[in-house]
Amino acid sequence: MSFRHIAIIGLGLLGGSIGLAVAARLPGTTTSGFDADPAVRQRARERQLTGTIHETAAEAVAGADLVILCVPVGAMGRAAQDIADALGPDCLVSDVGSSKQSISDALAQALPGHCVIPAHPVAGTENSGPDAGFAELFAQRWCIITPPEGADPDRVKALVQFWEELGAMVECMDAEHHDRVLAVTSHIPHLIAYTIVGTASDLEIVTRSEVIKFSAGGFRDFTRIAASDPTMWRDVFLNNRDAVLEMLDRFLNDLDLMREAIRAGDGDTMFDLFSRTRSIRRSIVALGQDDARPDFGRKDHAGTGMQPN
Amino acid sequence: MSFRHIAIIGLGLLGGSIGLAVAARLPGTTTSGFDADPAVRQRARERQLTGTIHETAAEAVAGADLVILCVPVGAMGRAAQDIADALGPDCLVSDVGSSKQSISDALAQALPGHCVIPAHPVAGTENSGPDAGFAELFAQRWCIITPPEGADPDRVKALVQFWEELGAMVECMDAEHHDRVLAVTSHIPHLIAYTIVGTASDLEIVTRSEVIKFSAGGFRDFTRIAASDPTMWRDVFLNNRDAVLEMLDRFLNDLDLMREAIRAGDGDTMFDLFSRTRSIRRSIVALGQDDARPDFGRKDHAGTGMQPN
Repeated sequence: MSFRHIAIIGLGLLGGSIGLAVAARLPGTTTSGFDADPAVRQRARERQLTGTIHETAAEAVAGADLVILCVPVGAMGRAAQDIADALGPDCLVSDVGSSKQSISDALAQALPGHCVIPAHPVAGTENSGPDAGFAELFAQRWCIITPPEGADPDRVKALVQFWEELGAMVECMDAEHHDRVLAVTSHIPHLIAYTIVGTASDLEIVTRSEVIKFSAGGFRDFTRIAASDPTMWRDVFLNNRDAVLEMLDRFLNDLDLMREAIRAGDGDTMFDLFSRTRSIRRSIVALGQDDARPDFGRKDHAGTGMQPN
Repeated sequence: MSFRHIAIIGLGLLGGSIGLAVAARLPGTTTSGFDADPAVRQRARERQLTGTIHETAAEAVAGADLVILCVPVGAMGRAAQDIADALGPDCLVSDVGSSKQSISDALAQALPGHCVIPAHPVAGTENSGPDAGFAELFAQRWCIITPPEGADPDRVKALVQFWEELGAMVECMDAEHHDRVLAVTSHIPHLIAYTIVGTASDLEIVTRSEVIKFSAGGFRDFTRIAASDPTMWRDVFLNNRDAVLEMLDRFLNDLDLMREAIRAGDGDTMFDLFSRTRSIRRSIVALGQDDARPDFGRKDHAGTGMQPN
């Protein structure tokens, strides 16, 4: 069932982390890699992100029984075309992109007759590029697999097992539902964070220096995800438009209700919302999806915040 | 210039942290405390948040040369009335509230003839109550002091020095400007976080369990500040209405532009914003106001993320 040789196309945060995780956790599996950027290939060689690094994508996938495309969502179709002729007949093709319907369509179109099973590990940091990856990125994180209709159950099982071997927990769902779930849990939060950081930078009446100095009041939490890779996120919003707009309208509607409550001085409506939202965080912490220490355990509080004395 | 005896009214996260910070850093200064909640007073005694804990606010302020009100913004006026008759003639009264114009007015009205200089340490965690405080909360954080017109410069200087002795950096500005700065750096981020967490909880098409599981894609960052104290935050929005509504409209305007960009498939507008916002985070990290490690140094990545190998 296990894969013997895995090719990774795109050696940024995700691709690099997969390479390092395979090396750390699957000693019997070899890896090869390619990145379109020569400087990234050079750095990938230095960090040994994959066993071998190749000058073309076609060379990298030769002999692989699993290929994982780790390029921005908008580059998936093109990356698939580049490897189409070099893929072995039994090679499984997967990816790590954040929007699944558009990628599923693009890969099916570029790779007719090949087995394609898209996947999305819900893990990442604000850093990108070949220096950002680390072997434990997927540990205790969820990976969503979206098998197309009629996908071979054994192939799905093999991909599930692979992600579990990298430390992830796996859930399967259809691509449309994935896109809605991620719109809420990832895409809208990024859009909001990018926007509020932009708003704060553009004010005249409050200086940029004041925004930076006094960011510990809450703003700094938003700047972390607003530092994410711009190309990746542009592609997410171009490719998950419908689900993002649907969820954005829900959010805007709720924000309008809060705006009216503030305008009207309606403290009860505010108190009601502000009380309800605490329990979700408790559940996230209980499920091991976040750090229970205050301020995420930022270094200034390490070892002081949670002690009851 | 230093204060000999400091009374702290309200023994939650901020009041408790001030008490512990004074004990740790100002051995020559004594403290007394009061909280309206008997259970909080009990816990404050066990944790020794202040040197003595009293059954009334009037008893707690007797003999103090500095009183710091650490109650929710909406309770400031009432707390000031409760101590008015017990204050010594030379006692300086200050506070830690997040909106300064309304507090300045409330304290001036409740304490005619007394010296009042409001202050706001821009520091906190998502935890509240008598167990949440710790001595280093203010270290390397900014404290904003908003001296009313005509305030005695020596008194201002003494308050600046006090906060610096607790490890904070101090900046003085007028109350109106403070309220605008904090609307951007703290109040709007909290409002947005509370709202999106509420939106996500109320969806039918995406379950609460899915929101929790897949929160590592960005959503979980918002849940931290959406777990903050509901009473405190209700009072902030009731008391800083004008500045919050002004900044909220700026944000909504910018979000509408992004919504149109997504609808129109305008990748250039997205890429432009997503690229601009990275530099603000770099500045915040450079100024020591956030943790440079990926994911704020959450425990799963400790010691792995930033090493270039």
